[in-house]
Amino acid sequence: MADQKKMVEDITSMDVDFAKWYTDICKKAELVEYTSVKGCMVIRPYGYAIWENIQKILDGRFKETGHENVCMPMFIPESLLQKEKDHVEGFAPEVAWVTHGGSELLEERLCVRPTSETLFCEHFANIVHSHRDLPKLYNQWVSVVRWEKTTRPFLRSREFLWQEGHTVHATAEEAVEETEQMLNIYADFYENDLAIPVVRGKKTESDKFAGAESTYCIEALMHDGKALQAATSHYFGDGFAKAFGIQFQSKENKLEYVHETSWGLTTRTIGAIIMTHGDDNGLVLPPAVAPIQVVIIPVAQHKEGVLEKANELKAQLSKNFRVKLDDSENSPGWKYSEYEMKGVPVRLEIGPRDIEANQCVLVTRHNREKTVVSLDNLDEAIAQKLKEVRDGMWEKAIANREKKTYKCTTIDEIKTALAENGDGLVMAMWCGDEACEDKVKDETGVGSRCIPFNQENLGEKCVCCGKPAKHMVMWGNAY
Amino acid sequence: MADQKKMVEDITSMDVDFAKWYTDICKKAELVEYTSVKGCMVIRPYGYAIWENIQKILDGRFKETGHENVCMPMFIPESLLQKEKDHVEGFAPEVAWVTHGGSELLEERLCVRPTSETLFCEHFANIVHSHRDLPKLYNQWVSVVRWEKTTRPFLRSREFLWQEGHTVHATAEEAVEETEQMLNIYADFYENDLAIPVVRGKKTESDKFAGAESTYCIEALMHDGKALQAATSHYFGDGFAKAFGIQFQSKENKLEYVHETSWGLTTRTIGAIIMTHGDDNGLVLPPAVAPIQVVIIPVAQHKEGVLEKANELKAQLSKNFRVKLDDSENSPGWKYSEYEMKGVPVRLEIGPRDIEANQCVLVTRHNREKTVVSLDNLDEAIAQKLKEVRDGMWEKAIANREKKTYKCTTIDEIKTALAENGDGLVMAMWCGDEACEDKVKDETGVGSRCIPFNQENLGEKCVCCGKPAKHMVMWGNAY
Repeated sequence: MADQKKMVEDITSMDVDFAKWYTDICKKAELVEYTSVKGCMVIRPYGYAIWENIQKILDGRFKETGHENVCMPMFIPESLLQKEKDHVEGFAPEVAWVTHGGSELLEERLCVRPTSETLFCEHFANIVHSHRDLPKLYNQWVSVVRWEKTTRPFLRSREFLWQEGHTVHATAEEAVEETEQMLNIYADFYENDLAIPVVRGKKTESDKFAGAESTYCIEALMHDGKALQAATSHYFGDGFAKAFGIQFQSKENKLEYVHETSWGLTTRTIGAIIMTHGDDNGLVLPPAVAPIQVVIIPVAQHKEGVLEKANELKAQLSKNFRVKLDDSENSPGWKYSEYEMKGVPVRLEIGPRDIEANQCVLVTRHNREKTVVSLDNLDEAIAQKLKEVRDGMWEKAIANREKKTYKCTTIDEIKTALAENGDGLVMAMWCGDEACEDKVKDETGVGSRCIPFNQENLGEKCVCCGKPAKHMVMWGNAY
Repeated sequence: MADQKKMVEDITSMDVDFAKWYTDICKKAELVEYTSVKGCMVIRPYGYAIWENIQKILDGRFKETGHENVCMPMFIPESLLQKEKDHVEGFAPEVAWVTHGGSELLEERLCVRPTSETLFCEHFANIVHSHRDLPKLYNQWVSVVRWEKTTRPFLRSREFLWQEGHTVHATAEEAVEETEQMLNIYADFYENDLAIPVVRGKKTESDKFAGAESTYCIEALMHDGKALQAATSHYFGDGFAKAFGIQFQSKENKLEYVHETSWGLTTRTIGAIIMTHGDDNGLVLPPAVAPIQVVIIPVAQHKEGVLEKANELKAQLSKNFRVKLDDSENSPGWKYSEYEMKGVPVRLEIGPRDIEANQCVLVTRHNREKTVVSLDNLDEAIAQKLKEVRDGMWEKAIANREKKTYKCTTIDEIKTALAENGDGLVMAMWCGDEACEDKVKDETGVGSRCIPFNQENLGEKCVCCGKPAKHMVMWGNAY
């Protein structure tokens, strides 16, 4: 147990310093490693395997809903980036510029894509001619670059991995439906697979994506009370179509502009998992994306029959689950600690006495509860435990969010709620005026996160100016 | 049939202009589209689906052999690239340089990775300390950039997709074994899955990868008689380890350098498929990577029961195969032509009379042979056809390679063989002297492709200088 204590002592307690706790976990669970490339990181095998599981699930859902994967160039010529005015204003200040190829100065500099609307638009203009060419439902899994000043693993880095969906449609209605459909796919994934509750909503005008008509988002609450934008889905109307000349011959033989959407989810999702579910013993991973769902730890493994039985169970369980058997020379205590740090949902302990009694011990990571189960029907017992883990994680996250959601009717109430309970999600009415939005942020520190789809009436007046309110807005301190 | 003729007339015959035929297919089969980013392309859904199938198969084999995926940054600081002398000399002339982040000039410029040895080495130096940390068997699926002057879809582009494996080992023997293992995985994939015969061999000193101790390769013959380097696997010895200080405490408690490998396969594989198997009707895809393995074309689809039956067959076959039903308004002739252009291995035609007779027509793409089969045991019939397609493609490719392999003992014989039979693979003995290698290339136009593992003794003398020969070398005109 000395080893075990040691490993846990190596990480800062989340109550002492949440930011330090976060980076400790990223390192100790071997998710990332720093590099000499400032603001960029190595995603290590264990971290990347989480991303691969995220990809597998989402890619399946994108394909089920008719989307196809493509791959665009990573470079965007400066003139192409400039075609849509709002878009270039939003992104130009934070792109990386390629100016030389080998020893030659380029005639036109190229930016490394911060997002690929402009490239998709150019492509759509080339390939869409008739209503029969529509819709085009495309996605790509790539990395993008944004020249951030301060960076943190997964949450904000100069290069990050993501998927970006880009679609064009014959009508505005169809494009809006697509925008909503994709937001719902993200929300279901977060809630069902990652056990992270989200608020679905719409960004205010000031917080929209550069070039979008409206931006929808899902927002999650982290353990420390800060909000995290988990994914976004944008409706562009025909703004980009006009800038790039994406037109089609309609059924009525008229030349019309397409209506466009884009939507994305990034590796910051791994940050959301860490900060929603993690604890002072390390990561806690949702079973759906855990690289290892069950780790088998043999006890007294030098004794006759133990490793044999452990290998047999591994072979059996591997048919239904992602299983690892750790038969290294390390002590069981050290192993328990390591796989708790790595957030493995279920630990299976098996020793000579268990084998004799035809049983094993299952320990669930999120609550560290032990259960002795029979080796008969072990697959069912494990499936049941994995479900319990997901549900237990969900309950904990929901409870935290409820505790940290503050309904307020005045700026003073917001200040008091935050001062008394710490960071959290503030629900308050708003008149729709940007000046009020800014003032709330200036006076209380929390910015508008979104206008939740799920509106409650918390009163008739704007929390700031007292004029008639238009919406309930969710406010928070954001990652 | 007018439609069908039209589509085929749109592509240049391969015998008239092979290069034009190639780019016509890339466009008409909707594999790629050009962009305003010079030398870069869009990989369209149908092309990208081929790459996804390639990834799925290879990624599975990499994982079976113990490899793990990671993700390194796309940027390399200039000082890091310069750490290994030969490596920087090989790559610096062809990299893209990032000099600005937003509006700020960077203190040190960054290149967009042309390959990632330097990043992996830096990472290995950080994480490898003891013999217990070895081996590390890593891979990543990313894109890389090389500033090529002349580009062609898939074969040579400024950005291309690939996987790059990077491994470190405690001993030279183990690293050499890894290098060979990965070459064999590539070769098996090319031969069994893609039906493309390859020659396994070693590059001569002049043709090695920048920084490698030895470079192994597989070389394939394209339909026009040119050779294509299909994949490479490099053994680095401890050269990079010394440049980057990658050391470990051995079992004997001594500080030692690791031995390293890297290996890669790119999207040019799609070019190899096109140029090995394609014909004047379009693509011919190996069943293992074909996005659509079976296309169902209803005949007289307006007649009662036809679409119903077609849908029923689709549902049934989709359990075992990648199936598409084309129930669009286009004529069957137009559809036949389209899916021939797209290289779909098996076409299934079904009309009212077929239904009545409980049968359908299967047409195999590579030889356009028709077979009438019973709807009982259809899955087996299709599986059999797909096997026939792969085997038929293989026979055709082997026959072409045999026809175009010339064994020569003098430079004049090489000249004559090439003049009489066109481009091909020349097998000839070599003394090992670089001057002779250069002279053969200067006088005959064919460069050394590799020293095949499978050596034949074609005589005792070097084809060039007449001195004692050391190896049989394969020479060719290369893509």
